[in-house]
Amino acid sequence: MVDYVKDFTWKKGITVRELVAGYSQIGYQSVELKKASDVIVKMKKDGAKIFLTFTSNMVTSGLRGFFAQCIRLGMADIVITTVGGIEEDIMKAKGERFQLGTFERDDVELHEQGINRVGNILVKNESYMNFENLLRPVIAGLYAKKKRWAVSEMLREIGLQLNDEDSILYQAAKNNVPIFCPAVTDGAFGFHLYLFQQDHPDFVIDVVKDFGNILYATSHDDKKGVIALGGSISKHHAILATLLNGGAEYAVYMTTAHKTSGSMSGATTNEAKSWGKVKDESDVATVIGDVTITFPLVMIRAFEELDAENLLRK
Amino acid sequence: MVDYVKDFTWKKGITVRELVAGYSQIGYQSVELKKASDVIVKMKKDGAKIFLTFTSNMVTSGLRGFFAQCIRLGMADIVITTVGGIEEDIMKAKGERFQLGTFERDDVELHEQGINRVGNILVKNESYMNFENLLRPVIAGLYAKKKRWAVSEMLREIGLQLNDEDSILYQAAKNNVPIFCPAVTDGAFGFHLYLFQQDHPDFVIDVVKDFGNILYATSHDDKKGVIALGGSISKHHAILATLLNGGAEYAVYMTTAHKTSGSMSGATTNEAKSWGKVKDESDVATVIGDVTITFPLVMIRAFEELDAENLLRK
Amino acid sequence: MVDYVKDFTWKKGITVRELVAGYSQIGYQSVELKKASDVIVKMKKDGAKIFLTFTSNMVTSGLRGFFAQCIRLGMADIVITTVGGIEEDIMKAKGERFQLGTFERDDVELHEQGINRVGNILVKNESYMNFENLLRPVIAGLYAKKKRWAVSEMLREIGLQLNDEDSILYQAAKNNVPIFCPAVTDGAFGFHLYLFQQDHPDFVIDVVKDFGNILYATSHDDKKGVIALGGSISKHHAILATLLNGGAEYAVYMTTAHKTSGSMSGATTNEAKSWGKVKDESDVATVIGDVTITFPLVMIRAFEELDAENLLRK
Amino acid sequence: MVDYVKDFTWKKGITVRELVAGYSQIGYQSVELKKASDVIVKMKKDGAKIFLTFTSNMVTSGLRGFFAQCIRLGMADIVITTVGGIEEDIMKAKGERFQLGTFERDDVELHEQGINRVGNILVKNESYMNFENLLRPVIAGLYAKKKRWAVSEMLREIGLQLNDEDSILYQAAKNNVPIFCPAVTDGAFGFHLYLFQQDHPDFVIDVVKDFGNILYATSHDDKKGVIALGGSISKHHAILATLLNGGAEYAVYMTTAHKTSGSMSGATTNEAKSWGKVKDESDVATVIGDVTITFPLVMIRAFEELDAENLLRK
Repeated sequence: MVDYVKDFTWKKGITVRELVAGYSQIGYQSVELKKASDVIVKMKKDGAKIFLTFTSNMVTSGLRGFFAQCIRLGMADIVITTVGGIEEDIMKAKGERFQLGTFERDDVELHEQGINRVGNILVKNESYMNFENLLRPVIAGLYAKKKRWAVSEMLREIGLQLNDEDSILYQAAKNNVPIFCPAVTDGAFGFHLYLFQQDHPDFVIDVVKDFGNILYATSHDDKKGVIALGGSISKHHAILATLLNGGAEYAVYMTTAHKTSGSMSGATTNEAKSWGKVKDESDVATVIGDVTITFPLVMIRAFEELDAENLLRK
Repeated sequence: MVDYVKDFTWKKGITVRELVAGYSQIGYQSVELKKASDVIVKMKKDGAKIFLTFTSNMVTSGLRGFFAQCIRLGMADIVITTVGGIEEDIMKAKGERFQLGTFERDDVELHEQGINRVGNILVKNESYMNFENLLRPVIAGLYAKKKRWAVSEMLREIGLQLNDEDSILYQAAKNNVPIFCPAVTDGAFGFHLYLFQQDHPDFVIDVVKDFGNILYATSHDDKKGVIALGGSISKHHAILATLLNGGAEYAVYMTTAHKTSGSMSGATTNEAKSWGKVKDESDVATVIGDVTITFPLVMIRAFEELDAENLLRK
Repeated sequence: MVDYVKDFTWKKGITVRELVAGYSQIGYQSVELKKASDVIVKMKKDGAKIFLTFTSNMVTSGLRGFFAQCIRLGMADIVITTVGGIEEDIMKAKGERFQLGTFERDDVELHEQGINRVGNILVKNESYMNFENLLRPVIAGLYAKKKRWAVSEMLREIGLQLNDEDSILYQAAKNNVPIFCPAVTDGAFGFHLYLFQQDHPDFVIDVVKDFGNILYATSHDDKKGVIALGGSISKHHAILATLLNGGAEYAVYMTTAHKTSGSMSGATTNEAKSWGKVKDESDVATVIGDVTITFPLVMIRAFEELDAENLLRK
Repeated sequence: MVDYVKDFTWKKGITVRELVAGYSQIGYQSVELKKASDVIVKMKKDGAKIFLTFTSNMVTSGLRGFFAQCIRLGMADIVITTVGGIEEDIMKAKGERFQLGTFERDDVELHEQGINRVGNILVKNESYMNFENLLRPVIAGLYAKKKRWAVSEMLREIGLQLNDEDSILYQAAKNNVPIFCPAVTDGAFGFHLYLFQQDHPDFVIDVVKDFGNILYATSHDDKKGVIALGGSISKHHAILATLLNGGAEYAVYMTTAHKTSGSMSGATTNEAKSWGKVKDESDVATVIGDVTITFPLVMIRAFEELDAENLLRK
């Protein structure tokens, strides 16, 4: 079966589903985007356990509520992210708001105003301070329950205490989706765990145990799919965890990084074949572009297709 | 007025117009994409003359029909492209079809099969040969009319001979939109002009005259807007032509190139301010990403907004 | 003082030091590269504690010996990397060799041959298996000494057992340079820690304690400099650790990522100012490019300058 | 023969030649850079006619003198560039100086000061005005000689009037190296040609004839090599011209663009094989990175190798 380039044209009121269908015959990255959507539909229909990974800057952005929705609708069975994403999810659940700015703001001036910049998003120092005030009693509460916590268990406990439909931690806890965060100390969270441990030396965050948890989150016999947004250790951890269970059947990588420097962020689903990371026969797609644009397109079209077949969680 | 990041969520049957509205509060490039759409709506409402520029690889893709539609609906008053785009528009108008492949095809094998690759699009040698057979009588016909042709005049003549609603040259000719192509010899077209000139030394392609044509295509008093897709001389030529008429009021640049190497392809609308290329007070946006994904989003949303106000050409 | 572009020309036998001097007047990234070298010279002369961070793919490459040399010569006081880099440093110290390939190898074929690909570098499955056999007794040895290990303490113990001048762990241990690895379970290492913990539940890897170790590796009063190669958590961890001690005075970021997606990998030294991550008055430089090319240039020129003033460790 | 990754280390006084030799065993782009240098040495030793192409922003930078040196030493038999590069070469030959700035300058402020920005290089409006005053008598002088000029013939005439060892046009004229510029009207040059033609309608710039000139600059039997820096029509024109003469035996592409969008700028030497653009058996290399850093490395090492065998023009 041969596919041909086909002239795309606008029709009034066109839906996202129709646009992504049109992408399949435009060429370059639009074709890969449509393919990524197909792979996601296929992994869901096939009953694969889905690993969804993203980096913290995406939680800073308005994708946070979309990730929560993905979890709620059953499109993520395991979530992996970095600790900044955890922190900002909690901050937002507690009412902090982040402002939209520009990439060219005067950073010295922003610093004087107590504002931090993440690309074109602005976060007040105050929001971090509020978060830190909040964190101390939470940690104390955890310690009161037990002394030794695997990271995913701790995040589940915290998620149960939130009450925000758009929260990743809340939806994950409610839907029994574990969140893994292999470098939990790499943020304000880590600092407060450290401060608490100073006074309570028997308090242990057990990252080694959590490695067992991610291994047992799926079995060798489960079909497995990876949706990796951005790179970093979130992506690598999903690949590693699936590999140790025989490899993933499906993989979608969406990133702005290119493969030419040999980085994990830029590694393509093709390279993953050499690692046995995705099985040779896997259905795979790599989409180059900013995920704040591309991921909603890919996933909305998958939602629509799966919804039509009643395959989304009610 | 302060804008805040807002959690984006899917609603069943969501339209492209709604999605792009949602982008305005996600962050990073999605915000720039929405802004680009706003700038286009604004330049149209303001009655600006619109320069639309694109590179030939975009005409190889299925964006070709979309560009033709942009011209038909009045969203381009001047078009600038490279000669490969002209050639492939004609080839497609004559029924040639391009196949979709992958970025990883074995290129030596493709060459042996007489297939050329442009990213993940495949073009048969045969398609080029058919084009060349077609071109000779066309050039002879032009020469029979007069000996000295400005490029845009020649392209208009050719456009009038095509009969394909999805053709850029056809729609441009029909709607009195000039197409400029400052390096017309940089392709098979150039080779055939050369062969013809060998036998007809008085045959002249007058690029200097065409510079006058682009200058007079708008006046100093016209408001002007630039929509530059990709980089290269198409983008530069639009900036130059508007600059010599006092500068553009509006500019949207969409590209995969970054500003860090000082190239025209990566030059942002911000840099353009220093050139007086866009006036200081201009409404401008730069979107980083593959235009096969981003341009349909930006322009469809503009179409919908303008259609609602009856501002598209019937 | 105004700097002008100056025509660069080759002189026979030109040294790297002379070339980098010439870069200062070429423009675009070459100017940033020279500036990065200046910042490194300045941070060293100023007695700053230097945080050197890199990602694991750089240890896969031949930069490994260069990093070891940087440590030996006193250009790194704190090292931060990801666990893949730790693993491959040990593998190489034990004699494993990695083959050079191409970016376009057939990955399914490689997988069948038991070969893994990292960009254009090939690693045999056998090398990993040898590493794993090696790791078990090492972990048992650690456990015999004590039950609870901070990561950096564990890596120091392992470094002392190696005997390879080109090894990062060896040079770090020998020169009392701590190596931090905030996500130590994200690799084969993590798997074997997990297996060992299954049989020895009182074995604890204490990542929280290590956060204290990195905080106390420098003081609030120390001047601090960051040299971040690539992005990921290694870069973020250095920024976080210096920030909690009042911020860094100097920062050099070298990466292939761009700032347009709001990722940590692409965050520039400019953005860092808004975070108070680098102090406002800091000397900073961001160089876009593959570090296998740019870092040797930047650092060799710094070595030469500092050596001339007897400021390298003997 | 299998190549292995080898730990790179600094030796005091290391030359560029030694560094590039070291690159051959580091990995990722450093390996490609060394390969590019090998390909250039090989094409020269093999007596290939060398097409050197670059974009105008590189002439804005200090690479201008290096390009002139490449021509003088016999490393370019045909030069292709865009008209901005021609203009700035002449401006510099007449004493104009460009200032080094930063990528983050306030562009509105620069515009008010009459300064234009190209990345981190600043050009005064005054420099352009001086150039334009200079250009008018030059064009008049050309017209006095004859009415119809091919672009390369015109550029040769101008080059003979300059007297600057670091000038591209001067060295090209002196060494009988033609310079092709397929879009000569895309700049201030075009505007002045147009003004002159208004008063002298029989003045013709014959781009079609120049296509013949580039075809006859090499023969089908010549071995041919392409060194393409950046993308755009300069790169495409070299590929086209060699293709019509049977294809190039050697090709080196150096660019910051990636292949994922199907653009000419990002097209790799691999893709070129499918076009028959480079012959299947060609020696080819693609280096991703800023050419202000990478091209001096690649070419200096080639100079040193060729000089050792007395293969540079005296």
